[in-house]
Amino acid sequence: MVVNKERVNALFKELAEFGKDGTGVSRLAYSPEDLAAHAYIIQKFEDLGLKVTRDAVGNIFARREGLNDSLPVVATGSHLDSVSPGGAYDGVAGVVSALEALTLLKDEQLSHPIELIVFMAEESTRFGFATIGSKLIAGIGSPESFSKSAKEGQKSYCELLTELGFKPQEYKSVQRSPEQFKSFVELHIEQGKILDQAEESIGIVENIAAPTRIRITVEGLADHSGATPMGHRRDALVSAAKLILAVEKVATNEAHNGTVGTVGVMDVYPGSITVVPGKVVLLVDIRGVDTQSIIDTVQNLKDEVSNVAEEDDVSITIDMVTADKPVALSNKLADELEDICKSKSIAYRRMNSGAGHDAMHMATLTPTTMIFIPCKDGISHNPEEYAKIDDIAIGIDVLTMFLKQQAK
Amino acid sequence: MVVNKERVNALFKELAEFGKDGTGVSRLAYSPEDLAAHAYIIQKFEDLGLKVTRDAVGNIFARREGLNDSLPVVATGSHLDSVSPGGAYDGVAGVVSALEALTLLKDEQLSHPIELIVFMAEESTRFGFATIGSKLIAGIGSPESFSKSAKEGQKSYCELLTELGFKPQEYKSVQRSPEQFKSFVELHIEQGKILDQAEESIGIVENIAAPTRIRITVEGLADHSGATPMGHRRDALVSAAKLILAVEKVATNEAHNGTVGTVGVMDVYPGSITVVPGKVVLLVDIRGVDTQSIIDTVQNLKDEVSNVAEEDDVSITIDMVTADKPVALSNKLADELEDICKSKSIAYRRMNSGAGHDAMHMATLTPTTMIFIPCKDGISHNPEEYAKIDDIAIGIDVLTMFLKQQAK
Repeated sequence: MVVNKERVNALFKELAEFGKDGTGVSRLAYSPEDLAAHAYIIQKFEDLGLKVTRDAVGNIFARREGLNDSLPVVATGSHLDSVSPGGAYDGVAGVVSALEALTLLKDEQLSHPIELIVFMAEESTRFGFATIGSKLIAGIGSPESFSKSAKEGQKSYCELLTELGFKPQEYKSVQRSPEQFKSFVELHIEQGKILDQAEESIGIVENIAAPTRIRITVEGLADHSGATPMGHRRDALVSAAKLILAVEKVATNEAHNGTVGTVGVMDVYPGSITVVPGKVVLLVDIRGVDTQSIIDTVQNLKDEVSNVAEEDDVSITIDMVTADKPVALSNKLADELEDICKSKSIAYRRMNSGAGHDAMHMATLTPTTMIFIPCKDGISHNPEEYAKIDDIAIGIDVLTMFLKQQAK
Repeated sequence: MVVNKERVNALFKELAEFGKDGTGVSRLAYSPEDLAAHAYIIQKFEDLGLKVTRDAVGNIFARREGLNDSLPVVATGSHLDSVSPGGAYDGVAGVVSALEALTLLKDEQLSHPIELIVFMAEESTRFGFATIGSKLIAGIGSPESFSKSAKEGQKSYCELLTELGFKPQEYKSVQRSPEQFKSFVELHIEQGKILDQAEESIGIVENIAAPTRIRITVEGLADHSGATPMGHRRDALVSAAKLILAVEKVATNEAHNGTVGTVGVMDVYPGSITVVPGKVVLLVDIRGVDTQSIIDTVQNLKDEVSNVAEEDDVSITIDMVTADKPVALSNKLADELEDICKSKSIAYRRMNSGAGHDAMHMATLTPTTMIFIPCKDGISHNPEEYAKIDDIAIGIDVLTMFLKQQAK
């Protein structure tokens, strides 16, 4: 069972054509490019003899029968949608690796059925909510709840899916039950620098950090930028700038606990060179693996917000968009992965994931683990995203061995 | 000659219908709403017996013949386009007042011809350049130069005008020569709080502050917002926040010289909640009436930019978009306005204009002055913009008397 690097490379290359955007890939969830990539990969699954089904929101299940097909499913997979512009590896690595693993296992006699799952809408770029497909599989949320962040002039999750012929109103049929699964494993690029800098090949994930997302709206007064003296302004952008630095400060103070804080989205109104900004909306993302540290960070940010509102005589409102708890993955499965790495003399470490993954929600259904592989300079969600084929091949090797042991 | 307040009020109300947008007005230059407002006002001009012509870029000239029609023109006017969303008075006040003044002067015997000019594209909101119509009348710039700030996916100045049937390529025919004019006067709301707070009715403008506009591009590194530890980031938005505060600081340090500084436009890339911003573009507007103070402010900002670039290990580039000099208006015409105010016991002051106006460019052709009237709380470029009819009527009274004296 030797990974066919050429076959794997070709698959990455072909998938990167869907939504190719300069040097990167823009394959927003449910976009024509995303749907075309799915059609392409379904053909590959069928070529391998897997039985493909899709649920009411489009999640793809490619099933390999078990010798005893009524046994619980050993599941693996990831997603094909991307941020815009993103790279060719985030999500794709987990799907390609799983397909290669099932290709290598084709002639093995395995008792348990194996399902390769391609989750829909993992990235939050399109709808403002992440991991929608896996959430619905785990019975979390509803298409209606995922429709409330739709930007002005853009279709909501429900509207778009209905238009595309999916059946979001039948979302309850999407939910799977714990007894259907034996375990779930997701291979993913690390999206951080730790493995790359340590020159280690495998990360075994123990916890997944949970995002707390906060919408902060600053309201000052829109005034003429030429005619309003400096002392007479209530400039919402000046106050927002202080909040950006406050996010940086409160997160840095909790960095020793693995917490991070980011302002990734900022809209300035009215957004004219001749107008002192009257309103600014910020989206803040705070993540960590330590629940208390996240709570402290959010509280410290709220204190800073109060200070800025008072100092600058602006009105600031805070909406908690999401506040998820960090997820602990299976220790038992991590031990099994560790044994595989040791048996093959692969350099590995046990570590946490700063980014969220579909595995978070699969962990509510079944024992779940994740295999990280290094990515160059830790860069992801960026056209520069890159993983070496040798590292991918080691990841596939570990994944294949793991699936074989689980399904035997 | 008594101002007909009902007629004036009705005209403001009717013009505010073009581009009505909630409580405000959005009438971007050359938009369907802007063109409809022009068609409406042209009808009013023609009803009064004025001879209306438009030049190749659409500037409107409504001419009242002089007894000696070969004498130089006494000109007045302003603009009808707005920011988005703006109010019902900026620009409109100067056009409505001039029309009312010419209505009141209808039966007067006056030697000089009078031209009421409606300048196109005074606001920079649409094309990134302000006072385009008056610039071309003064022979400043070219349609091509005004086309270079077009935002991605939006039509440039040249493209849009050509599509609308104007003839930007014939822009040289738009230029007027100094010998054609005797003087120019523009009535405008102050767009500041000085007259409103002092309860004075008229501001006589001595200098117009000139905008220096700077585009600052901060380039850091786009990274995953969950997986990139705080110490490992090159977050372009954090650096941009420092620059916003730097603009505030350097302008406040020069506030005693009347200088102001504003960041009104800010674009964050890629603008995703899951990505540490890799690039931010800021548009900075610095204005003043003291050339040395503006130069000092820009230099101090550049120093701050260098510090931030070095501290944060980001790349920051500075483009000077415009760097105009403050414009001194006619002292002689200001004295004449002052005499009119005194003769009518009107509370007035001589003052500077923080905002730019078409009068800046008319001043390069002919002796020019401006009449400011108070606006509530100094608010402009905002749906809350408001001027009392009593203040407008006093302004029209002074304007009428001034035009009569100039044209006699």
